[in-house]
Amino acid sequence: MKLARIGDPGAERPAALHDDGTWRDLSGVVGDVDGVLLGGGPAALDAVREALAGDLPVLEPGRFGPPVAGIGKIICIGLNYRDHAAETGAQAPAEPIVFMKAADTVVGPHDTVLVPRRSTKTDWEVELAVVIGATARYLESPDDAAAHIAGYATSNDVSEREFQIERGGQWDKGKNCETFYPLGPWLVTADEVADPQALRLTLSVNGESKQDGTTADMIFGVHHLVHYLSQFMVLRPGDVISTGTPAGVGMGQGTYLTEGDVVELEIEGLGAQRQEVGQA
Amino acid sequence: MKLARIGDPGAERPAALHDDGTWRDLSGVVGDVDGVLLGGGPAALDAVREALAGDLPVLEPGRFGPPVAGIGKIICIGLNYRDHAAETGAQAPAEPIVFMKAADTVVGPHDTVLVPRRSTKTDWEVELAVVIGATARYLESPDDAAAHIAGYATSNDVSEREFQIERGGQWDKGKNCETFYPLGPWLVTADEVADPQALRLTLSVNGESKQDGTTADMIFGVHHLVHYLSQFMVLRPGDVISTGTPAGVGMGQGTYLTEGDVVELEIEGLGAQRQEVGQA
Repeated sequence: MKLARIGDPGAERPAALHDDGTWRDLSGVVGDVDGVLLGGGPAALDAVREALAGDLPVLEPGRFGPPVAGIGKIICIGLNYRDHAAETGAQAPAEPIVFMKAADTVVGPHDTVLVPRRSTKTDWEVELAVVIGATARYLESPDDAAAHIAGYATSNDVSEREFQIERGGQWDKGKNCETFYPLGPWLVTADEVADPQALRLTLSVNGESKQDGTTADMIFGVHHLVHYLSQFMVLRPGDVISTGTPAGVGMGQGTYLTEGDVVELEIEGLGAQRQEVGQA
Repeated sequence: MKLARIGDPGAERPAALHDDGTWRDLSGVVGDVDGVLLGGGPAALDAVREALAGDLPVLEPGRFGPPVAGIGKIICIGLNYRDHAAETGAQAPAEPIVFMKAADTVVGPHDTVLVPRRSTKTDWEVELAVVIGATARYLESPDDAAAHIAGYATSNDVSEREFQIERGGQWDKGKNCETFYPLGPWLVTADEVADPQALRLTLSVNGESKQDGTTADMIFGVHHLVHYLSQFMVLRPGDVISTGTPAGVGMGQGTYLTEGDVVELEIEGLGAQRQEVGQA
């Protein structure tokens, strides 16, 4: 099932994709696509599927908002593809590098991304986003991870490299600027993603291909990450793990985003994003 | 005014301290002590004061929860006291070091703090917490900061040093374990804190003094931090800035917390915390 949130910013309505190709309004069925719904597990999603098979009103797809509301935390994994680690001049990490994005950086998949004031190194990163569906705390094995994943989405982990690397030693400073986490267009429930380690990820800037990778090249796979992170923090329904980006970011090429640029990205089966770049 | 949230975890009621020394129930006056109330600015707080002057029911102070509900993000400043930087073997930073704690690490001031599994270096850090009261985005000057601060609270930025420093390069991994941010007991509104740079901070473990500092020794003061951070991210009502800790942490002495320890900490005028240490 594909779940989305459609409408103006702050006024999105929960929606699901019907077999006939139309989006249907879930407002009468669920409160929102959020941790409450996702934490309800397979039974809650089955109830949505059942309602969807009935006669729900069609929702014209205007703006797609972020497909998950009320995100608790966004946990990001750094340098999780060997080719990306190499292009940044870093060693492949021995264990996952973890940093955070605040939930208020999240915007819709087609919303404007703003270059921060005094930024000269605003960069792109197509990333597989994993949305948590059940509380994960000290999982015993990566084999337990799948039961804690609600679904997957496309994301752009926008990054300001000077702020991230040259301004004081912790990456968060360059990861939390406003509009720095376009998410969506939809959340694909885990049952529809046969293998999260076999998805192509692509990104272009102004029509020129920049990133073209596959999640098969992750150093630490999705199940490993869920298990690993659960040893350090509690993962809760509606939390997001952003699993790192393949090679082809601006930092590797010495070229960055400026006002008027257009970024297009897609993950196989999870939908495409398109952002025009503005200036804060 | 002192604002608090009193009651069992997840069932706290908003409260304010009356002149007669009793806590009064604000449930009929405000939704909660949260970004909505604090974002209402001085007028909203004046309305609370007016109600408090009337006949509000007394609330027996059982458990104090975190004094702010629905915290958006917690932005932490690293190595912001020279003596603490020195004890960790680090240089005093040229500009603020920024890392993040997720809001779900927040617990009440007297709640149990859990040593994570496989932790051998769980540490304490008494810190002045600054609670944001108005959206701050690209402030022009530190002089603009005061108008964006709702108030102040005591906090303990609990940290796992091995996870933070020896496990992959970014500090967040050792800062986001469950129960790692006791906050409160109350939020003191900014009008009652004459000078946030003249507050004594103390912390003891099992009755033995460990930290005894003053916010006068901050490298980057509160107003500087609010201005600085607003250049990199949007600060919103209910966000918290944890402004760093003075010397005397366990890392400087090679001694850490274990189950059964008792941590007591206080900031002058902002109230005291006491945590028993448990094992996750």
